[in-house]
Amino acid sequence: MSRFWSPVVHTLSPYVPGEQPKQDGIVKLNTNENPYPPSPRVLAAIASAAERLRLYPDPRATRLREAIAAYCDVAAEQVFVGNGSDEVLAHTFPALLKHDRPLLFPDVTYSFYPVYCRLYGVAHEEVPLDAAMRIEIAGYRRPSSAILLCNPNAPTGIALPREAIAALVAENPDRLVVVDEAYVDFGAESAVQLVARHDNLLVIQTFSKSRSLAGLRVGFAIGQPPLIEALERVKDSFNSYPVDCLAIAGAVAAIEDDGWFLETRARIVSSREALTRDLGQLGFEVLPSLANFVFARHRSRSGADLAAALRQRGVLVRHFKKPRIEDFLRITVGTEEQCGRLIEALRGLI
Amino acid sequence: MSRFWSPVVHTLSPYVPGEQPKQDGIVKLNTNENPYPPSPRVLAAIASAAERLRLYPDPRATRLREAIAAYCDVAAEQVFVGNGSDEVLAHTFPALLKHDRPLLFPDVTYSFYPVYCRLYGVAHEEVPLDAAMRIEIAGYRRPSSAILLCNPNAPTGIALPREAIAALVAENPDRLVVVDEAYVDFGAESAVQLVARHDNLLVIQTFSKSRSLAGLRVGFAIGQPPLIEALERVKDSFNSYPVDCLAIAGAVAAIEDDGWFLETRARIVSSREALTRDLGQLGFEVLPSLANFVFARHRSRSGADLAAALRQRGVLVRHFKKPRIEDFLRITVGTEEQCGRLIEALRGLI
Repeated sequence: MSRFWSPVVHTLSPYVPGEQPKQDGIVKLNTNENPYPPSPRVLAAIASAAERLRLYPDPRATRLREAIAAYCDVAAEQVFVGNGSDEVLAHTFPALLKHDRPLLFPDVTYSFYPVYCRLYGVAHEEVPLDAAMRIEIAGYRRPSSAILLCNPNAPTGIALPREAIAALVAENPDRLVVVDEAYVDFGAESAVQLVARHDNLLVIQTFSKSRSLAGLRVGFAIGQPPLIEALERVKDSFNSYPVDCLAIAGAVAAIEDDGWFLETRARIVSSREALTRDLGQLGFEVLPSLANFVFARHRSRSGADLAAALRQRGVLVRHFKKPRIEDFLRITVGTEEQCGRLIEALRGLI
Repeated sequence: MSRFWSPVVHTLSPYVPGEQPKQDGIVKLNTNENPYPPSPRVLAAIASAAERLRLYPDPRATRLREAIAAYCDVAAEQVFVGNGSDEVLAHTFPALLKHDRPLLFPDVTYSFYPVYCRLYGVAHEEVPLDAAMRIEIAGYRRPSSAILLCNPNAPTGIALPREAIAALVAENPDRLVVVDEAYVDFGAESAVQLVARHDNLLVIQTFSKSRSLAGLRVGFAIGQPPLIEALERVKDSFNSYPVDCLAIAGAVAAIEDDGWFLETRARIVSSREALTRDLGQLGFEVLPSLANFVFARHRSRSGADLAAALRQRGVLVRHFKKPRIEDFLRITVGTEEQCGRLIEALRGLI
């Protein structure tokens, strides 16, 4: 502590990301990274862009916004890019979510949301998931300025169908609906195609998961131009060039290689189904996931104990010491071999 | 505009960075980039790090903080890193500069400072430079919570000696002094060595200028651990991984190649002296710069007209339409050849 700290600093409880172990040989299923490398075209694009490192990047990241726009079938003015979807979310709070009435989000969801609220002084209310850990849309019919949903939700992996998002957006023309689709590419339905018809919808995605680029830090938002302008104004009052020149080049190459994307995604979806089946056979209840992770609890063993025992056997999974979910493990879908090593370790424990 | 904009968005007047032209063949002396490429070791380090792109970066950027600490002769806990010094500055405002009393900075300085104040609601007062465009330390003896100085100052290039910073810090034990040393490596004296003795000093530097890495986005702050902790708390409430894995690897390689740094810096300092002399012979008053740019006004020609005419001849320099400095041009020190092309273009105009 220091007498120079601003008042807000004393109140912050920062988000704690999953561990990034330094040693090799760990089966790392704790931070929802893609087990496959990015497209080889990404490495070539990065090597080529490295020749221009002495120059500032394009502050608008025009090439990248155009590539995302082409892929998502929207206009480049409907695309905002940032340093990972975490930065895009961060700017969304002061730009679009700070109003007199509270923001609503689920009680069990990405645990960074309440951290942003604290930093920016955004009032919020948490709406409970139902008993099956699903988002219950009816619960969001209460006074509020905006609704923030993660779809598929984290850490449950359970997705809402596009028609549920469409109904929510249509029913609330004067409330902004933000859909965090960090995990959408692994089988859920994106709301991006609803943006054309609704000025109260902002959809946020990332290159970290389905494009295997967690290390490059690129995320984006899709919305009608006035929403994008609000994000640009905040970004340009914060940091002119948050997406560096290698990230721009690498992300463009990644989104242009659809074959690589489709193949690696299919492998992860296939591994998820096998992992779900294997965990079930070991006595786990596994929530129905459309993400690149599963959320599972054992019928007799505590989540904290299992996570610690797995750790001792060189397998990292994520455990949250939080109400409603402390019995669960969040397990990233790895390669077939990684999933096999997890199951093998669990067989030795249970 | 949109009914979803938060109140603050309406009030923002974002910082406008210098133009990044898409076409080749331009003599680009408008954004203070280094005319020489980064160390070849940087490219090798980036290529090697690209193998780990699917994984999140180390959220603490430990390797980079340790490399900076070793170079600056401080402890790693005294180092904070961010996505360019712009992001480091941005976090400094809510973390350390938002108090009841105002922040002080010069009336002519980096024009991002008042933009940050607007975004974060930080009260500030501007202290006029003296008639020779120098920072007058006596002007900072007024009620305030903190002092923010750019040293060498931008866009003047004029530097304060270390002893002036030392006196200011010693005289104000209960006010935080933040020194933005983006340009310090081109001949000015850094205040970093004062950090050990003063808990009210934060020094901010960047890899963008003297390390030729504007495109990679790496900046850092040096201060005693409680100041660094405030920045970490805000950063971890905003974005866990703002410095991507390529930026960490590239910046480490850059700071470890001292030979490259010393050689390219010496060439820029030599070009700056030649440029200052040549501009003087053409009728310019050139402020005494210790940065990688010069700030100059012609005795008879307007700054706006000269900037426009140079632009037509393929030479970009920066002109600010602002009180006190609208007669000036800010000219980045390029290679000898680039400086030659600028002088040649000016000879055709004057």
